[in-house]
Amino acid sequence: MKLKKQTTADAVKNQFSALINDSLGDLSQIIEEFSTFENANENSMIFVLSPKLFGAALNSKAQTVIAPAKAKDWWTENGGSKTVLLSPNPELAAREVKTHLVFPTPFKAAFQGVHPTAVVAESAELSIGVTVGPHAIIGENCRIGEGSFIGTNAVVEENVTIGNHTTIHPLAYIGHSCQVGNNCEVMPSAIVGSEGYGYAHDHLGNHYRIPHTGKVILEDDVHIGAATAIDRGTMDDTVIGQGTKIDNQCHLAHNVEVGRNGLITAQFVTAGSAKIGNNFICGGKSIVAGHTKVGDNVSLAGLSVITKDWDKPGQFGGYPLQPVKDFLKTKSTMVHLVQMRKQLNQLMKKVFPEGDA
Amino acid sequence: MKLKKQTTADAVKNQFSALINDSLGDLSQIIEEFSTFENANENSMIFVLSPKLFGAALNSKAQTVIAPAKAKDWWTENGGSKTVLLSPNPELAAREVKTHLVFPTPFKAAFQGVHPTAVVAESAELSIGVTVGPHAIIGENCRIGEGSFIGTNAVVEENVTIGNHTTIHPLAYIGHSCQVGNNCEVMPSAIVGSEGYGYAHDHLGNHYRIPHTGKVILEDDVHIGAATAIDRGTMDDTVIGQGTKIDNQCHLAHNVEVGRNGLITAQFVTAGSAKIGNNFICGGKSIVAGHTKVGDNVSLAGLSVITKDWDKPGQFGGYPLQPVKDFLKTKSTMVHLVQMRKQLNQLMKKVFPEGDA
Amino acid sequence: MKLKKQTTADAVKNQFSALINDSLGDLSQIIEEFSTFENANENSMIFVLSPKLFGAALNSKAQTVIAPAKAKDWWTENGGSKTVLLSPNPELAAREVKTHLVFPTPFKAAFQGVHPTAVVAESAELSIGVTVGPHAIIGENCRIGEGSFIGTNAVVEENVTIGNHTTIHPLAYIGHSCQVGNNCEVMPSAIVGSEGYGYAHDHLGNHYRIPHTGKVILEDDVHIGAATAIDRGTMDDTVIGQGTKIDNQCHLAHNVEVGRNGLITAQFVTAGSAKIGNNFICGGKSIVAGHTKVGDNVSLAGLSVITKDWDKPGQFGGYPLQPVKDFLKTKSTMVHLVQMRKQLNQLMKKVFPEGDA
Repeated sequence: MKLKKQTTADAVKNQFSALINDSLGDLSQIIEEFSTFENANENSMIFVLSPKLFGAALNSKAQTVIAPAKAKDWWTENGGSKTVLLSPNPELAAREVKTHLVFPTPFKAAFQGVHPTAVVAESAELSIGVTVGPHAIIGENCRIGEGSFIGTNAVVEENVTIGNHTTIHPLAYIGHSCQVGNNCEVMPSAIVGSEGYGYAHDHLGNHYRIPHTGKVILEDDVHIGAATAIDRGTMDDTVIGQGTKIDNQCHLAHNVEVGRNGLITAQFVTAGSAKIGNNFICGGKSIVAGHTKVGDNVSLAGLSVITKDWDKPGQFGGYPLQPVKDFLKTKSTMVHLVQMRKQLNQLMKKVFPEGDA
Repeated sequence: MKLKKQTTADAVKNQFSALINDSLGDLSQIIEEFSTFENANENSMIFVLSPKLFGAALNSKAQTVIAPAKAKDWWTENGGSKTVLLSPNPELAAREVKTHLVFPTPFKAAFQGVHPTAVVAESAELSIGVTVGPHAIIGENCRIGEGSFIGTNAVVEENVTIGNHTTIHPLAYIGHSCQVGNNCEVMPSAIVGSEGYGYAHDHLGNHYRIPHTGKVILEDDVHIGAATAIDRGTMDDTVIGQGTKIDNQCHLAHNVEVGRNGLITAQFVTAGSAKIGNNFICGGKSIVAGHTKVGDNVSLAGLSVITKDWDKPGQFGGYPLQPVKDFLKTKSTMVHLVQMRKQLNQLMKKVFPEGDA
Repeated sequence: MKLKKQTTADAVKNQFSALINDSLGDLSQIIEEFSTFENANENSMIFVLSPKLFGAALNSKAQTVIAPAKAKDWWTENGGSKTVLLSPNPELAAREVKTHLVFPTPFKAAFQGVHPTAVVAESAELSIGVTVGPHAIIGENCRIGEGSFIGTNAVVEENVTIGNHTTIHPLAYIGHSCQVGNNCEVMPSAIVGSEGYGYAHDHLGNHYRIPHTGKVILEDDVHIGAATAIDRGTMDDTVIGQGTKIDNQCHLAHNVEVGRNGLITAQFVTAGSAKIGNNFICGGKSIVAGHTKVGDNVSLAGLSVITKDWDKPGQFGGYPLQPVKDFLKTKSTMVHLVQMRKQLNQLMKKVFPEGDA
């Protein structure tokens, strides 16, 4: 991926000095592309995280490498004529370089300002630098902060507040009265603020929707994945805490609260009123049951299920939940289950020949 | 949540007399809000379902409480100066109060009539009181019943029939020829009537879509959740029975039939041609395999899997399915699996020292 | 379902001679409908795949039957006065008849050309016969091939290439720079080219999106289901191979590659950078973990999980993966787990009365 304009290793080192604090080799090296190992040419820059890949990085045609600080000795001994930019956090350094020199995130379409086909209510307040794409709708009394972007065909209903520099992608839905913070992203076809799944029932078995008067609050720096649905609260609010990133096709039900800086991956489900702490991490298709409380710093393997309150920090997996090491042993034992039952039958016949004790 | 206008306990009792048949305390009590226990002030009304929460309701600042009829004695002894509206079904009573005095469900946006940016085919028939939002599309020969609402950017293809007082939320899709009943709701980004996943195959391993000439029929009072997909039938129809409520991100494949008054929660999947009875209830991420028949009154724990015909009513869980009590024991035994295998190895060595029998 | 116009068995046999190579009975039989067994009248045509259903086909009112070539003897003995069109692949023959005589797939709405409410960038190139629905958007520098269809409210961002005779259904999203082949279908609310879930992290636990400069490539004849999300690559591309059909609500993460002619059913998830071979088949809700390599001709039961490289062809199931026969035995043993633990406790007491060895 070509940089927006040609630069040098020296210029990169200076611009990103907070993340690049040392270097090896020729800093006048020209950089034109940010690249994978395989697709590199001599004016490419690559980045490498792990000592296992130092050799492959060396064999790449790229002349410039972002590498971990601890790699200095290795590169001194093996790096030959490469230019190496050393960082305490090479992944973040590479992210910064890519974001600023190659490509803004998120991608913003070519149009600017309010597209003439957008429908923006007269009472809506748009700050400086707001972009509203073709056929997007912004309802009455909305407030959209500076530099925010409302994508093509997106729907923002009445009384919504959106902070600064937030991106609502095409075809996303923000339901009435919801609040979206600064620097958030809502991906295409995400649904924020749909009516929650709450019903009262009569004695004949009919179900009647309970009106949901709560809203959804996305705090600052929250990302919501494609086709993810966040239901509004029944009376209180559904809240996603600052910095939490939610992947595609997740379902967060009414009244759920998620803390700060979570990493919630694809097809996660939490039923209603669960309260999840800070730094929650989960692999794909995990579940948190309704009305449970989950403490801070809980990390789940994919397909894990939390069915009751859980306040132990650490890494867990399975259903029921176990420490992740135990979970892996349980899983690997599963394939012996049939053989185990055969052995049990043999043992029972031998030890209790008269029949079950 | 403020009521639309101030009222009194007496007025509420009279208006909802079908569900509130007794009371305690001062019926002249003013009511201005419908509230949670925590956020109440003295002019709030709260509701309480369970004796466990009677004490907390008493401690709330709210002066008006909707409570179960059987709570009369408790409130007489402990309720002090509160006004208590007694109901045989306090959840439904609270739902009615909230729906009529606070907030209509579903929320209807501020516009009325057919928005000038909507594209409505000339041959479409719209009854009295139909609202069509900005940029919505209604195809040829559609019929939309009285008071129905077609949300912003929603797509209703040709030959669709929609009943009275039905809400198609923004960005929802109703495919050609489908039929939607009265009082239905289709949530944002739901897909009703997508082409089913049916292919013919040649000897080279290529797949050819089989055209799906069936439709989707949603009977009256059906709700379809956000991003839920209901595929049209191959030749016959896919049918969701009266009163069934489907949560977000469910997948119901071609030719599926679901009976009346089901409660189907998030990320349910049923493969093609399954026939599910009345009053089907399932927890999140459950599965019903293709071509199975499921009887009436079957209730599944989350993550359950039905792989073959199942006509027993009751509560079940697991994969394979067990009565829910047995399922819970099976699940709780899982964490002992590694230890069980160790013990088996010890037993085998001791009982069959010469090796496996 | 009525044919577009009345025909005869003889005309069908001639038109589809590549797939119908023999017949029985009166070829002057009139055909007006393509039907299920139950809904047939004498001018209906039905098709039958399996000897188990020959009897039912015989009892249908339909006078014309498409049947497997090997059924010739059965029909000669039992078929009476029916007209039987014999095919080496009756499912594919029926598909061809239905596609050409009854109903085009996919259904194309009544409008043609570029709808006046569509927003098409001046720099976009539309080939002959392209249809663009109401309120659809086509960005700068897009190229849309002959006869392709961009549905109502669909969003095609900048620099997208779409081949010939491809259908982008209403409300679908094709992100900037993506490439879609010939004869593809992207279902309603599918998301192709959303930003991948990739973050760099700082020492405070904050997450920073890594800009995704790769694209999504859908090769020819690929189908993408409703609400399915295919994330763009981080630097390289996410690639779905020719002829692969993906069902509803699947998630394919950044940098994933899927080979040719796969059949991937509902709510499949693969995490990032997995490389999946040709002819991959999986039942619903299966998972392939990130960074795994899966060989050709792997077939998975529903809910299977691939956690590490897997190059064995064949049918597998479970988590961990087993040959499908073993998987089924493991599953059926699960219901004995509680009893197994009871027996183990009895054995341990009897064999090791002094306590665990």
